[in-house]
Amino acid sequence: MTKKNATIYDISKKLNISVATVSRALNDNPRISQATKELVVKTAKEMNYKQNNLAKALKSGETKNIGIIVPYINTNFFSSVIRGIEEELSPHGYHVIICQSHEDVVTEKKHLNTLLNAQVDGIFMSVSRTTIDTEHIQHILNTTNTPIIFFDRKKDIPGISTVTIDDYKGGYMATEHLIDEGYKNICHFAGDQNLEIYQNRLRGYKQALIDRQFQVKEENIVFTGSSIDAGIDAVKKLWSSTSVPDAIFSASDSTALGACQELKKRKIKIPQEVAVIGFSNEPFTQFMELPMSSVDQTPVLMGNMAGQVFLDHIKDNFSGVSIEKKVVLAPKIIVRKSSKRK
Amino acid sequence: MTKKNATIYDISKKLNISVATVSRALNDNPRISQATKELVVKTAKEMNYKQNNLAKALKSGETKNIGIIVPYINTNFFSSVIRGIEEELSPHGYHVIICQSHEDVVTEKKHLNTLLNAQVDGIFMSVSRTTIDTEHIQHILNTTNTPIIFFDRKKDIPGISTVTIDDYKGGYMATEHLIDEGYKNICHFAGDQNLEIYQNRLRGYKQALIDRQFQVKEENIVFTGSSIDAGIDAVKKLWSSTSVPDAIFSASDSTALGACQELKKRKIKIPQEVAVIGFSNEPFTQFMELPMSSVDQTPVLMGNMAGQVFLDHIKDNFSGVSIEKKVVLAPKIIVRKSSKRK
Repeated sequence: MTKKNATIYDISKKLNISVATVSRALNDNPRISQATKELVVKTAKEMNYKQNNLAKALKSGETKNIGIIVPYINTNFFSSVIRGIEEELSPHGYHVIICQSHEDVVTEKKHLNTLLNAQVDGIFMSVSRTTIDTEHIQHILNTTNTPIIFFDRKKDIPGISTVTIDDYKGGYMATEHLIDEGYKNICHFAGDQNLEIYQNRLRGYKQALIDRQFQVKEENIVFTGSSIDAGIDAVKKLWSSTSVPDAIFSASDSTALGACQELKKRKIKIPQEVAVIGFSNEPFTQFMELPMSSVDQTPVLMGNMAGQVFLDHIKDNFSGVSIEKKVVLAPKIIVRKSSKRK
Repeated sequence: MTKKNATIYDISKKLNISVATVSRALNDNPRISQATKELVVKTAKEMNYKQNNLAKALKSGETKNIGIIVPYINTNFFSSVIRGIEEELSPHGYHVIICQSHEDVVTEKKHLNTLLNAQVDGIFMSVSRTTIDTEHIQHILNTTNTPIIFFDRKKDIPGISTVTIDDYKGGYMATEHLIDEGYKNICHFAGDQNLEIYQNRLRGYKQALIDRQFQVKEENIVFTGSSIDAGIDAVKKLWSSTSVPDAIFSASDSTALGACQELKKRKIKIPQEVAVIGFSNEPFTQFMELPMSSVDQTPVLMGNMAGQVFLDHIKDNFSGVSIEKKVVLAPKIIVRKSSKRK
């Protein structure tokens, strides 16, 4: 559709001047006359020339660009991890390019290609919900030297370093807190079990119940999406059963928010009748009508650690060593009014 | 630091096989034996080869990559505009790369170079607060054919299309609404006047007061940043003066949130004693203890329109015509409890 891109060789041919002169003119070299510079710039524009500093970058083997693929950017969690990575890498001269998979493995694959084509020096990613097999990631690992680092949503692939929080512990702590507050019939809104993070939060929930001599009731575990509506639906479902819960541990803050809205609509009192605790400590949780408890994932720190792991990879690559790192951060429970009965 | 990148020519030389064979092997062509493929892939990896589909893209003049530069991604506003752009362009096969300027013009410049180096087909940007002169943008316009489209935070540069909302009207509507609700002494938290959007919201505020025979008092206009703390400070400042306001029109939702927090702390009742209305309709406004009024900027629509303007540019470029487009969207006022006294 658009005109073809010209190279400096095409410009040189057209103007019948040397490639060196074209290059110098485009780079505003003082050795070139103003008239020539203007002529070269005008011609370059007419010929649809795009300056390609990649050639320079390719010589050194580094572009100083870093790619990040996240499912979406519009949560505090992912934007904070990105900020953490930037904090760590900007002082080293790296620029960060961000892509969203929108939870679609096909888009994720395309973005991986886009980033490789942009010659990034490394890729940080949190996989999409629909990323079941990981052949596309394995392929990059097998055919390039571009380091890939997983954060939060990882897959177990030998050779790929990961930075995660201990989601099992987060689920355990949230459930134990509810038990300590005297709640007896704790339900769990479990997220998509294709993602390890949600599997681990569920495992933590179950183990805390078992360790404190509570029964794990399958009817108390609802597998939900992570939207507000999913939380509303989950409350509708649970409150139509015979054994109504007195506490909700939700694997996502948005789902917990939906639950609070539906409970309010039904005039069920939080935290007197039902406690609610979410997961992620999104900023809205503290501004809610009734500030909501949640589990903080220390996302900026997660980004900082991921950045450090990348810098280590670059060093290792230089020295010929390759070490796979598994960094696991500790979650923090943030108790607010929605789960404090005592 | 890292090993130099090899080309397929280097691999061909090293293995003493043709470039075509190397290329076919790397592209998993069935004509090549498994043994050869494995050897080529192994060698490519050892030599730090990065597959460069750019060469292919350069032939057609299109990479189908689009760059977006925003000040930051962690507001609903910017992430929604990005979503709008993706919605519009994904069906046409474009992939979106996002960069954050963090309100720093130096970072903005670097990202423009990063995107040009990645050979993007177009750049969408919302300028940073520190972008005073626009030589770096002008330079791209003069020396490349890469279309640039401003959204929300624009600069007036001939040849650059813009998609904005009518911020003047938004400021006018918010102020008029407060007057209609019977508030008499309306103050304004004005944002950074280096940005046109904030200049226009302030103009709208002033004109609505004038049109309704109210006096514009300079002491009622506080120039703030756009953080929660800035809102807290603005309330402290205004409430220490002799003429205390009975309504706040804030040019930013976060600042308005800070104001609500400080007013609550001082036991000043919203909306009975003081009304509060923000700007942007960030999602947290509706989940607040007292749901907050705001001005909606229809960010997804803004992104859709920006995407359409880009597609028109591509078409125009093909037909040799270049039309500068100025799309101005209408803001929507969202009235909630924080400003409804009647």
